[in-house]
Amino acid sequence: MHVGFLGMGRMGAGMAANLLAAGHEVVVYNRTPAKAEALAVKGATVAANVAEACRAGVVFTMLSDDEAARSVVYGEGGVLASLPQGGLHVSSSTISVELSRRLASDHAAAGQRYAAAPVFGRPDAAAAGKLFVIAAGAKDALDAASPAFEAVGQRTFRVSETPEAANLIKLSGNFLIMSVIESLGEVMALVGKGGVDRRQYLDILTSTLFSAPVYKTYGELIVEEKFEPAGFAAPLGQKDIRLALAAAEELNVPLPVASLIRDRFLRLMAHGGQSLDWSAIAGLSRKDSGE
Amino acid sequence: MHVGFLGMGRMGAGMAANLLAAGHEVVVYNRTPAKAEALAVKGATVAANVAEACRAGVVFTMLSDDEAARSVVYGEGGVLASLPQGGLHVSSSTISVELSRRLASDHAAAGQRYAAAPVFGRPDAAAAGKLFVIAAGAKDALDAASPAFEAVGQRTFRVSETPEAANLIKLSGNFLIMSVIESLGEVMALVGKGGVDRRQYLDILTSTLFSAPVYKTYGELIVEEKFEPAGFAAPLGQKDIRLALAAAEELNVPLPVASLIRDRFLRLMAHGGQSLDWSAIAGLSRKDSGE
Amino acid sequence: MHVGFLGMGRMGAGMAANLLAAGHEVVVYNRTPAKAEALAVKGATVAANVAEACRAGVVFTMLSDDEAARSVVYGEGGVLASLPQGGLHVSSSTISVELSRRLASDHAAAGQRYAAAPVFGRPDAAAAGKLFVIAAGAKDALDAASPAFEAVGQRTFRVSETPEAANLIKLSGNFLIMSVIESLGEVMALVGKGGVDRRQYLDILTSTLFSAPVYKTYGELIVEEKFEPAGFAAPLGQKDIRLALAAAEELNVPLPVASLIRDRFLRLMAHGGQSLDWSAIAGLSRKDSGE
Amino acid sequence: MHVGFLGMGRMGAGMAANLLAAGHEVVVYNRTPAKAEALAVKGATVAANVAEACRAGVVFTMLSDDEAARSVVYGEGGVLASLPQGGLHVSSSTISVELSRRLASDHAAAGQRYAAAPVFGRPDAAAAGKLFVIAAGAKDALDAASPAFEAVGQRTFRVSETPEAANLIKLSGNFLIMSVIESLGEVMALVGKGGVDRRQYLDILTSTLFSAPVYKTYGELIVEEKFEPAGFAAPLGQKDIRLALAAAEELNVPLPVASLIRDRFLRLMAHGGQSLDWSAIAGLSRKDSGE
Repeated sequence: MHVGFLGMGRMGAGMAANLLAAGHEVVVYNRTPAKAEALAVKGATVAANVAEACRAGVVFTMLSDDEAARSVVYGEGGVLASLPQGGLHVSSSTISVELSRRLASDHAAAGQRYAAAPVFGRPDAAAAGKLFVIAAGAKDALDAASPAFEAVGQRTFRVSETPEAANLIKLSGNFLIMSVIESLGEVMALVGKGGVDRRQYLDILTSTLFSAPVYKTYGELIVEEKFEPAGFAAPLGQKDIRLALAAAEELNVPLPVASLIRDRFLRLMAHGGQSLDWSAIAGLSRKDSGE
Repeated sequence: MHVGFLGMGRMGAGMAANLLAAGHEVVVYNRTPAKAEALAVKGATVAANVAEACRAGVVFTMLSDDEAARSVVYGEGGVLASLPQGGLHVSSSTISVELSRRLASDHAAAGQRYAAAPVFGRPDAAAAGKLFVIAAGAKDALDAASPAFEAVGQRTFRVSETPEAANLIKLSGNFLIMSVIESLGEVMALVGKGGVDRRQYLDILTSTLFSAPVYKTYGELIVEEKFEPAGFAAPLGQKDIRLALAAAEELNVPLPVASLIRDRFLRLMAHGGQSLDWSAIAGLSRKDSGE
Repeated sequence: MHVGFLGMGRMGAGMAANLLAAGHEVVVYNRTPAKAEALAVKGATVAANVAEACRAGVVFTMLSDDEAARSVVYGEGGVLASLPQGGLHVSSSTISVELSRRLASDHAAAGQRYAAAPVFGRPDAAAAGKLFVIAAGAKDALDAASPAFEAVGQRTFRVSETPEAANLIKLSGNFLIMSVIESLGEVMALVGKGGVDRRQYLDILTSTLFSAPVYKTYGELIVEEKFEPAGFAAPLGQKDIRLALAAAEELNVPLPVASLIRDRFLRLMAHGGQSLDWSAIAGLSRKDSGE
Repeated sequence: MHVGFLGMGRMGAGMAANLLAAGHEVVVYNRTPAKAEALAVKGATVAANVAEACRAGVVFTMLSDDEAARSVVYGEGGVLASLPQGGLHVSSSTISVELSRRLASDHAAAGQRYAAAPVFGRPDAAAAGKLFVIAAGAKDALDAASPAFEAVGQRTFRVSETPEAANLIKLSGNFLIMSVIESLGEVMALVGKGGVDRRQYLDILTSTLFSAPVYKTYGELIVEEKFEPAGFAAPLGQKDIRLALAAAEELNVPLPVASLIRDRFLRLMAHGGQSLDWSAIAGLSRKDSGE
């Protein structure tokens, strides 16, 4: 494939590197050029601007939030203006359901194709090509992007012909991770204060009913209260719970656990938690228990 | 071992059967005799009363709640009155931290030994000898009970010399399961109303970060809204969240997710949910979303 | 005073009528002309468009939400474009803190003055000139608007030189009303199911510690479950709790009771509560109790 | 009337003093004799034990909690054993619905009469004879106690023939007060951090829709963050929310705001709040906002 890739953050850089490693021709662009240059040594062409990267006809975006995505797509010389007729925009960013819907509509109006393909996995999984890709869009669009999905991920799930469905799945998945963090935080505060060894307790959980990566990864951080450096920064978690709640509000679905998590983040931010890992909300339970 | 076993509910019957299968000599007792008789065909001796079962010197109890446990231990001819000096009571029931502490103290005062060994696993795991045993108590008591633990479980965790620690772990584990049920209920309400296929969504979860039995088991029930027949009845779940909250109250540990789950059960009970599975609280999220 | 008035909903019409009654010269405008015509019989001049009303030099806006306010201010021929240099815009609408801040900034940039003057009181209080006016802005602006405040309200509170402070007070006040509604809903569900006569209970409350209008007004509606016709429609309450939460999010202030109320509204909306009074969220507590 | 009075805490002492002032003959008893002696100078007879006070035939109890009430009623030489046939026990303590029900049943079985008459008002109201009395029980019992009610209170509400109904009203009333405290805490955290003067804000509230004593009293404490000395100690508030939740659990009525308040108290207690006023839970909102 000949593919443009916009956004060379830790996730995007890993994905682009795996596209290159799989033999694809990749034109990268990043607002801060240095990050794009780093990919040049791996064989990427560095574009001078968004438009140049769009010439590939297929362009991936992996950006930090709605604002960044809107700017790259709708800005002057942006994706919408630059992608050729019939071109394909694959959005892997964790953006709102609402923006994804709008992108689908605006690309269609412009005679372009659009698919959403957010991913599950942290930067190390992106670097290792071990992401899980949640892909939604028209069959031909997903077929076209399929080799790229294979290069960046260990498995692709095609979930819907409506792109925004993939974003809803991504956001709800992140909510579910946060609900695990919150619950683990509460339960660790409880058993630890009750005299149980937290590490052994975690071992029991992950050896029995809770033998899933999410419990191992976050259980470890919570037992150690090791919330720095951030693997996934708290403000990003806060953004995702906000977007999950926004999607739920549009659908009239109350999510009380998500509301609780939202409040946790506000409190964390009010106390300077901006640079902590999102799992730091679990530390509030222990704090409230007086430890 | 020569062991008494009090309580032939679905859990106790499975455990006793595995003790027999492992070659131990088992004297069983149940308030309703018919359930005890069923074990006779597998080689158990059926005791006429609690005292008779206690003569074995080591006695397991697997009873439904604090009230049943109190009655069997403190009642006339109960365990406390009947167990010989130096005898051992192993409580596998899911009882309160407070009662377990009291049992430890009262058995010690009576010159008897006491260990708590609640288990994780549903009746099918009990029948298969695949329980996880959470054992706490003095080393000699746990050593003495060890062959029995091996017979009923796939793994034993020795967690503390203080028996009640095992009960705290059991209750907090059940709280954690319920937090998964609640979160899954919310998230399934959201994605389903958003047009995502719930079964495929569950498949994504359990193929990726949430590949643990608790997500598979309860995810399935929640997708199907199959809350009858009850594998674990809602009133038992309600009891366990009550006991987890009681333990947390004694330790001054707020558990907001547990509070939320407690309220779910009250609502379920107010609408006749007594005979449903505890995962039925997840159905309330879908109901609130108007589906 | 010579004053323009934009927005002839139930609140705006009452306010404009009292301005007229107090002898002020009032130019009214409403998107739907019929509502403006109704004021003509009371002596108002009906403007053909926003710009015409702005010629008075002082213009009040009383609009339903941010969207309406944005459209009237920023639209073509809107307040920003039409108000003369040194002119004054007094916004009485219940809008977001964020929009109020933006209005202050944009009017200043345009050489115009801006004050926020949201009000407490329902349509009957507006009709009676018995509103409470929460005014914020520069002293000269508030002085200039002062005769108008006196005409529409029974009392004016000058709270800050920063206009958005008045909006924060209005939103937080509405949140406080909703918290009363929610608490009353819960407590009425409890005592009623416990056999207490709800009407007598309300009488006890309002005769003792809770002798405030908010308890009388909403207590009555909740006891009677009389949620139609809407005095203040549920979608407006939902909007206000959303705006209160947005203001709190910007300030990093968790509001758990507001989060709970937000979820109540989602559930109400999912079940077709759009035309009910905002106090209908109290009915959910009784419903959850199985009554 | 000739009346015994058990419990000379701040509430009981004030009530007994007003009974004396009204000309009734009062026999007082307190576990710690010094507090009873203080009433002797006002004309009370000091009883040596509970039984002696019960000889009056009508005995009031005003004790701190269920445990104290149980001990005084069911202990050796207690009210149940000492009250004559046809004697009347009027319980003014804030006790559980469950205990009140049990008292009604046990007194009836003993051929005695029982009424519940909890009161609203703080110690200063008790001293001033300005309490509100919530009375429930058989008509003849309430008639008999009526002169006493008149002496201690400014108004008596007869609410039910079932004594426990009065206790439910008292507990739910205290819950409602706590919900005001919680909401005020949240809203004060919000507006204050948003730059609004908290004192002026409170003035606005209490001058408009929230012109009730409960807002004035607690608003003042919350604005000043003056949580010491305790007018009503936090552990008593915690007890009352626990009893309200227990009553609600028995009736299957979820009370999410009460659950939230319960969690607030746990956190307060975990941080040494035992000697603070119950309104100190409001301080947690400000703390969470980073102030």
